Amino acid sequence: MPKVAAIVVGAGLGRRMGKDKTFLLLGGKPVISWCVDVLQKSGSIDAIVLVLHKDAMDAGRKLVAHSNWSKVNAICEGGPHRQDSVRNGLNAVDRSEWVLIHDGARPFLTGRLIENGVQAASETGAAAAAVEVKDTIKQVDDSGIVTRTLHRNTLRAVQTPQVFRFDLLRKAYELVSGEYTDDASIVERAGYRVKLYPGEYENIKITTPEDLMLAETIAKGLSKG
Amino acid sequence: MPKVAAIVVGAGLGRRMGKDKTFLLLGGKPVISWCVDVLQKSGSIDAIVLVLHKDAMDAGRKLVAHSNWSKVNAICEGGPHRQDSVRNGLNAVDRSEWVLIHDGARPFLTGRLIENGVQAASETGAAAAAVEVKDTIKQVDDSGIVTRTLHRNTLRAVQTPQVFRFDLLRKAYELVSGEYTDDASIVERAGYRVKLYPGEYENIKITTPEDLMLAETIAKGLSKG
Repeated sequence: MPKVAAIVVGAGLGRRMGKDKTFLLLGGKPVISWCVDVLQKSGSIDAIVLVLHKDAMDAGRKLVAHSNWSKVNAICEGGPHRQDSVRNGLNAVDRSEWVLIHDGARPFLTGRLIENGVQAASETGAAAAAVEVKDTIKQVDDSGIVTRTLHRNTLRAVQTPQVFRFDLLRKAYELVSGEYTDDASIVERAGYRVKLYPGEYENIKITTPEDLMLAETIAKGLSKG
Repeated sequence: MPKVAAIVVGAGLGRRMGKDKTFLLLGGKPVISWCVDVLQKSGSIDAIVLVLHKDAMDAGRKLVAHSNWSKVNAICEGGPHRQDSVRNGLNAVDRSEWVLIHDGARPFLTGRLIENGVQAASETGAAAAAVEVKDTIKQVDDSGIVTRTLHRNTLRAVQTPQVFRFDLLRKAYELVSGEYTDDASIVERAGYRVKLYPGEYENIKITTPEDLMLAETIAKGLSKG
């Protein structure tokens, strides 16, 4: 049984960009390869499962065949919602002590984010990377009138990695239905405590064309460094 | 009496970057010049007041002397908090029908953002640009444990421009004390309704070194377009 299995969720339909971001080229290699390379190198990760959009399965198989990813032991198809994709990934892992979920559209994963996530999860069984919120965040009603400005000091913008005790995440997925934007939310909804640990501002998710421009800039900076 | 006066707030201490961002060069010109150029060109703006950090007053005076900014009719010193700076700007405007507040660290202001702000403010007397929130936002307690995940559909990340009826904003500033991260919050706190209107993802605020990298990339794209 692997100690820590990673599930890379690259199954998004890319509604904001009009296409699947997972295989776009970033600094000369597919977006998804960036994070898988880091997971492959990490001493904390024992196995990797890729969850891909059904139209990207062939491209994914070819990519794995041509990459040096000895830890990738399954490629499985995503579902209509994020949690369907993660559930398929969990079934493909079958069983491990811990599971680390990472967005395939977050290329700038680091070894430190992985290790700190595993460490933070050991406290509560569930941890998610998160950064302080720079913007002022308000809640609005249907007509765009502000109903409330939130106290910024208490807010965090959540990223991945998110790390869970495998049994805890599986249990949460059994208990909770409905649509959620991250796995920690499902775990919270199931009644478990989630610990946030410091993410990194560079650990962006590529969602819009502006994000891809920023990613290219970060990638250039990394190749220089 | 000018119909719409703009106050550009460039007085931030730049705590996240370790220095004042206002005069950093971006695509060959100071960050603050980008938005002032757009305000100068806008048919909706009649007067401009710059609020600068006390250590930047000389640099500001020189910049104004060398720029073609016929609408800039005052440069005044900022205060310790954002609202002290805005209050100084309001005093310098003295009086106008409307006032538009803009962050000096948001270079990619557009004519459309200005016009839509003035238009939206005409409904309620107070309007702020805002974009949908892409991240999952959680609230945490002091130990980093999640207390709540917010319903993302109702959240907006607020930007500037923010446009107010001059008398309404002045009244709000008289009524409200304490520290706030934007002017709309002060207006809300004073009991007025604030209308949010669509901002732009490119209308970023330069706060971190990553933001400056993204800004350089956006600036290059604009100079090509």
